[in-house]
Amino acid sequence: MAVQKKEVFTLPRRMQGLQPTLIRQFFERALPDSINFGLGEPDLPTPDFMRAEAARVAVDEQNGYTSHPGIPALRDKIAAQYPHLDLGRTDVVVTCGSQEAMTAAFMCLVDEGDEVLVPNPSFPAYDACVRIAQGKPVYYKLPADKDFAFDISNFKSQITERTKVAVVISPSNPTGKILTPNDLQQIADALRGTGSYLISDEIYNDLYFGARPHSASEYYDKTIIINGLSKSLSMTGWRLGWAASSQKEVIQAIQVLHGFLTVCTSAITQKASLLGWTAEAEAAKQNARDIYKKRGAFMVDLLDKELGLHATSPEGAFYTMLDVRSLGNDIEVAEKCLQNRVITVPGVAFGTEGSGFLRISFCNTEEKMVEGVSRMKEALFA
Amino acid sequence: MAVQKKEVFTLPRRMQGLQPTLIRQFFERALPDSINFGLGEPDLPTPDFMRAEAARVAVDEQNGYTSHPGIPALRDKIAAQYPHLDLGRTDVVVTCGSQEAMTAAFMCLVDEGDEVLVPNPSFPAYDACVRIAQGKPVYYKLPADKDFAFDISNFKSQITERTKVAVVISPSNPTGKILTPNDLQQIADALRGTGSYLISDEIYNDLYFGARPHSASEYYDKTIIINGLSKSLSMTGWRLGWAASSQKEVIQAIQVLHGFLTVCTSAITQKASLLGWTAEAEAAKQNARDIYKKRGAFMVDLLDKELGLHATSPEGAFYTMLDVRSLGNDIEVAEKCLQNRVITVPGVAFGTEGSGFLRISFCNTEEKMVEGVSRMKEALFA
Repeated sequence: MAVQKKEVFTLPRRMQGLQPTLIRQFFERALPDSINFGLGEPDLPTPDFMRAEAARVAVDEQNGYTSHPGIPALRDKIAAQYPHLDLGRTDVVVTCGSQEAMTAAFMCLVDEGDEVLVPNPSFPAYDACVRIAQGKPVYYKLPADKDFAFDISNFKSQITERTKVAVVISPSNPTGKILTPNDLQQIADALRGTGSYLISDEIYNDLYFGARPHSASEYYDKTIIINGLSKSLSMTGWRLGWAASSQKEVIQAIQVLHGFLTVCTSAITQKASLLGWTAEAEAAKQNARDIYKKRGAFMVDLLDKELGLHATSPEGAFYTMLDVRSLGNDIEVAEKCLQNRVITVPGVAFGTEGSGFLRISFCNTEEKMVEGVSRMKEALFA
Repeated sequence: MAVQKKEVFTLPRRMQGLQPTLIRQFFERALPDSINFGLGEPDLPTPDFMRAEAARVAVDEQNGYTSHPGIPALRDKIAAQYPHLDLGRTDVVVTCGSQEAMTAAFMCLVDEGDEVLVPNPSFPAYDACVRIAQGKPVYYKLPADKDFAFDISNFKSQITERTKVAVVISPSNPTGKILTPNDLQQIADALRGTGSYLISDEIYNDLYFGARPHSASEYYDKTIIINGLSKSLSMTGWRLGWAASSQKEVIQAIQVLHGFLTVCTSAITQKASLLGWTAEAEAAKQNARDIYKKRGAFMVDLLDKELGLHATSPEGAFYTMLDVRSLGNDIEVAEKCLQNRVITVPGVAFGTEGSGFLRISFCNTEEKMVEGVSRMKEALFA
C-alpha cells in the first residue's frame, strides 16, 4: 500500500525538551589550562589493588555475559551492606553505574502524569529521569536561606494524590549536606500511607566528614536505594552501580528492564569489584574521607579569607555552595570565572533555589585550590 | 496535607507484561552437565591482544568518566566503518553493549501508539524494546516455508500510516540468514516516503560465511545502525556497542538519552577497544568466521545424518533453525532435549513463524556437537 507521511522528525514526547545539562554546557566552553572547580568526580586515583585485580581478570578469565542482575557473589556483598533490610541477592540489581539504576527505578515506578518530588536544588539528572518516565517533577525546597537544610513543612506541602515517588540524596550534590535521622523520620512519616516510594540516592554515602549518614531505607520501607563504587573508590569510569530494596516487585521490574537497557555492566568491572568490601577497600574509603574533609575545610576557609564570601560547610560529598548573591546573577559570575580559567557551576543549574550560588567542587589539591580562588578574585574583584 | 492511597503496587504501563525471555526461562532449568546449543555468545576466547591492552589500561591509566558519547578516537574508528555515509565522530554514540543502543534508538524514535515492524521470527528483545517505548509491535513474516527468507509482499502489507520504525537484522538471530542487496533495496523502496526509520541490527555482521553482508544504511538514509564488538571479537561481557547514523537529530537524541541511561560504558573497555580495528583484530574476526563456517556446516550435516531432520543453511551468525514439525510442538521437543541434558531454544520464543523449529547454536566444539546431537537422538527417537 502507498503510505505518505510528512518527512519532518518529531521526538517522542519523553525526549522533548531534554537537553545536556547546563553543567556540561559550561564544561564544553572551558579555556585551556582552566582550574576545574566544576568536577563531579574524585581526583584521587582508583586504588592499586582494584587496578591489579581488573588486570588479572582481563588476562586470566573469559569475560562473557554475567547473570543479568549481576554476579551472585557481588550481589551478596551489596545485600550485606543493608543488614536492617535483611536482603538477599535477588533484592539487588547491579547496573552500569548508579545512573542506570536511577533511570531504571524511575521507569519502573513512574507512569505518565505521576508526580515526583525532587529536591531544589539537586543534580539535574533527576528532572531528566522523571521526564523520560513521562512523570511530572514537583520541587520541594531546601531553602538557601537555611543553608540548604531539609525543610519538612515545604516537603509536606508538595505531596498530592498524584505523588508516586520522592527523591532524596544524602550527602547532597550540590550542597554537601546530610539528611539527619530526624529529617529521615519526618520524610517517612510524611510519606507513610500515601503509597509513595522513596528513591534514595546514596552515591556519596561513603564520603562523610562527621557521623556516617543514615539510609532513608532505615526509616521507610518503600525505599529504593541507589548506589555504586564510583565516588567512594574513585571508579567513575568503571561503571559499577546498583539498586537495592526490600520491595520485591520493584526490584523484579528493575531487573527485567535492566536486561533490556544494558544486559549487564562490564564483567571485568564486576569481578574486580568483589574487592570493594575488603579491609583494603575500607582503608581506601577512609583515606578519601580524610582527604576530602581536609580539603573541604580548606576551601571554605580560603573562599572566606580571599573573597569574603560565605560557602556552606560540607558534611559529605565534595561540594560546597558559594554565596555570590552580593555579586549578582550566578550565571554571569560563573561566566566571569570561566573567562579567567576557573570552571564553576552556576547554582541555578540545580534549580531556582540554587540561584545566586556557585557549586564549588574541592576535588583538587590545595595548590590548585589556592590558584583557582586567586583567579576568581581577579575575575570578580579586580 | 493528609493524602491516602491504596497500598497496592501497579507497574507503569511501559513495564506491564514485560517478562524475562523464554530463552532465559529455559536456561534457568538446565540440568548439570548439559550441552548448550542455546548459547547466544561466542565460545571462542577474547583475543589475547585485547586482554593485554585492557590490563595495561586498568593498571597504567586513571579510568574516569569518558566523554558521554564515547572516547573521540573510538568514535572516529567506528565512523570510518561506514564510508558510504561519510560520518564524523558526532554521528556515533558508544553504548553499554548493542542492547543499550537498541533500546535508546527505540526510545528516541517511538512514541505511544506508534507501530514498529518487527521480523517474525526474531530476537525477542525487539518486542520488549517496542513495549518499553510504548509502541505497538507489528510483525512481518520471514516465512518458515521459504527457509525464513525475506518476503517483500508480507513486509509491505504491514506498513500503515502509524508505522514509525521497521527493524531488520542481518545476519539474523535466530535464522542465520542474510538480507540480500535485493531485499534491502526492496525494503528501502517500500519505506521511502513513509517517514519511517529503519533500525538495522548488525551485531552479527562480521560473522558471515559467503559474501560480506550489506548494511541497510547503504540503501535507505533514515537508518540507525546498531552494532558492537561482542560477537565479532568474543567480547560479550565487555559491553562495547554503538549506534551510528547520518540522521543527526536522532543521534543527538540518542546521545542525550544515553547520558541519562548509563553516562558511558566502561572506560577500560572503550580504551582497549581502540584495538578493535587493527590487523590483529581483523585476523581474529577472520579466524572466527572460518571456525563458525566450518562448525555450521558440520552441525547441519550432523542433524541431517543423525536425526534425519532439516536445518536451515546458515549464511552468518552462529545459529541454524532445525525443523522439528514432524515431531510435534517445539516447546515439548525442546523440553525433551532439556531433560536429556541438551539446551536448545524452542522457535516460538522468536515468534509464531518459529513454531515447529528449534534454534540451535553452533558455538560449540565438534566433539560437543556430536555428543549433544547424540543426546537429542536418544531423547527424541529412543
